[in-house]
Amino acid sequence: MAEIVAAAPASDWRGIDPENTLYLELPTGRVVIELAPRFAPLHVANIKKLARAHYFDPLGIIRVQDDYVSQWGDPSSRHPLPPDIGKVAPEFDRPLAADLPFTRLPDGDVYAPEVGFSDGLPVARSPALHRIWLAHCYGMVGVGRDVDADSGSGAELYVVIGHAPRHLDRNVPLVGRVLRGVELLSSLPRGTKAMGFYADDQKPLPLKAVRVAADVPAAQRSALEVLRTDTATFTAVIESRRNRPEEWFKVPAGKIDLCNVPIPVRQATAAHRP
Amino acid sequence: MAEIVAAAPASDWRGIDPENTLYLELPTGRVVIELAPRFAPLHVANIKKLARAHYFDPLGIIRVQDDYVSQWGDPSSRHPLPPDIGKVAPEFDRPLAADLPFTRLPDGDVYAPEVGFSDGLPVARSPALHRIWLAHCYGMVGVGRDVDADSGSGAELYVVIGHAPRHLDRNVPLVGRVLRGVELLSSLPRGTKAMGFYADDQKPLPLKAVRVAADVPAAQRSALEVLRTDTATFTAVIESRRNRPEEWFKVPAGKIDLCNVPIPVRQATAAHRP
Repeated sequence: MAEIVAAAPASDWRGIDPENTLYLELPTGRVVIELAPRFAPLHVANIKKLARAHYFDPLGIIRVQDDYVSQWGDPSSRHPLPPDIGKVAPEFDRPLAADLPFTRLPDGDVYAPEVGFSDGLPVARSPALHRIWLAHCYGMVGVGRDVDADSGSGAELYVVIGHAPRHLDRNVPLVGRVLRGVELLSSLPRGTKAMGFYADDQKPLPLKAVRVAADVPAAQRSALEVLRTDTATFTAVIESRRNRPEEWFKVPAGKIDLCNVPIPVRQATAAHRP
Repeated sequence: MAEIVAAAPASDWRGIDPENTLYLELPTGRVVIELAPRFAPLHVANIKKLARAHYFDPLGIIRVQDDYVSQWGDPSSRHPLPPDIGKVAPEFDRPLAADLPFTRLPDGDVYAPEVGFSDGLPVARSPALHRIWLAHCYGMVGVGRDVDADSGSGAELYVVIGHAPRHLDRNVPLVGRVLRGVELLSSLPRGTKAMGFYADDQKPLPLKAVRVAADVPAAQRSALEVLRTDTATFTAVIESRRNRPEEWFKVPAGKIDLCNVPIPVRQATAAHRP
């Protein structure tokens, strides 16, 4: 796979839009999240407003459930939401559209009729329902909510840090994917209360600052580029993971699960530096 | 699910055999591993010999790769293997057998023709090949090896701490499953070298002691019992996870992936205390 990726032409890589990139500035380092405005425009808009109001900064990571999620927010509502953050539609899925690219995986899926990649994100779709939705793979970012479908504003977010909890698909708006630093969230001490919430004697990791990358001076931005998922290179990556060519493998799987496909990310070359 | 499990008759639970249970006594707590002698008898025998020779005790966790594995061993071979640990057959899979229970999952699988549970373990099988094998779900324990199929003795072991790397199925002997304490392995700092190996400036967590439970005084054993996977209760657990009844869920998945099925473990009742 490394050889395939190294041989990719520059045009197979894309930069990331600083206006749709979120930085979590943890005491342990930066987590870079690429937001998904084509899948959850209302929630992404809310999250950017919240970041720009510095709403998240005094909060911490209050839930780390093993094999499931790391989550931040303000469960006891001590910090009021900015006035322009209102209820928005759930955005659990969206209509199929001709301009939404789809690189289909050939091996099927337990949960959905079709799975693949769109805009560098793992997706599932149903032609019968004419709907497409983001899939809960490792590193995906979702909106915590209460019982009501529309009760999640984006003020409480989680990142998947375990086996893909695909039963959450279409029950939660997914708003993006971690490109860098997921290990800063996955290696945290697990919460000892029910559902992995931190007990009173556990210290939540402070978020410190959450910023839209566009608001950070260019020199301080993370210069990353992502392999386009609608390229022959990415299709070759998938194939090289379906049938691993390394001598170590004795029985090639011949198949691959959506959430086992890596989406290559690297330091940006000149074309995609901020 | 909690209600289904609470209502299960005592006979639906089984104790765990101390002769086939391994304790990792980490500085942070105990990891309890149930070994799988019906699937990897030669490797399980090796691992028990190694534990009884206190071979593992001076070693540490030398590799933690995010979304993949935590691994311990002696990569630089500073500690010679006991003389009776020899090469054994790979044990990547085994023949189907009438006395091997199989609770089949109804929703299919990306990697194998059939998946389900056998002896409380996630398994895949192929009637055409007449073979059955353990599946790489979260918490499963596997044998590290070099390029040769028979190069893994059991002296180097890993635990899955990420999205199920099912492409490893039938390429590695799986030797058991973590029943308690997987979070002690999954929350460790990730290794910064290639493949998550610890760099020289990273301190591996010492194993301290690795013991066969039968060699530990009864009063110091972990008293656990596991829900039998060949019971109506377990089938009801599966169904309650395929279609989550909680009001929170708006779109029930209607399906479940092998590695998303929880196998209930609890403190032992009187019948199964050591």
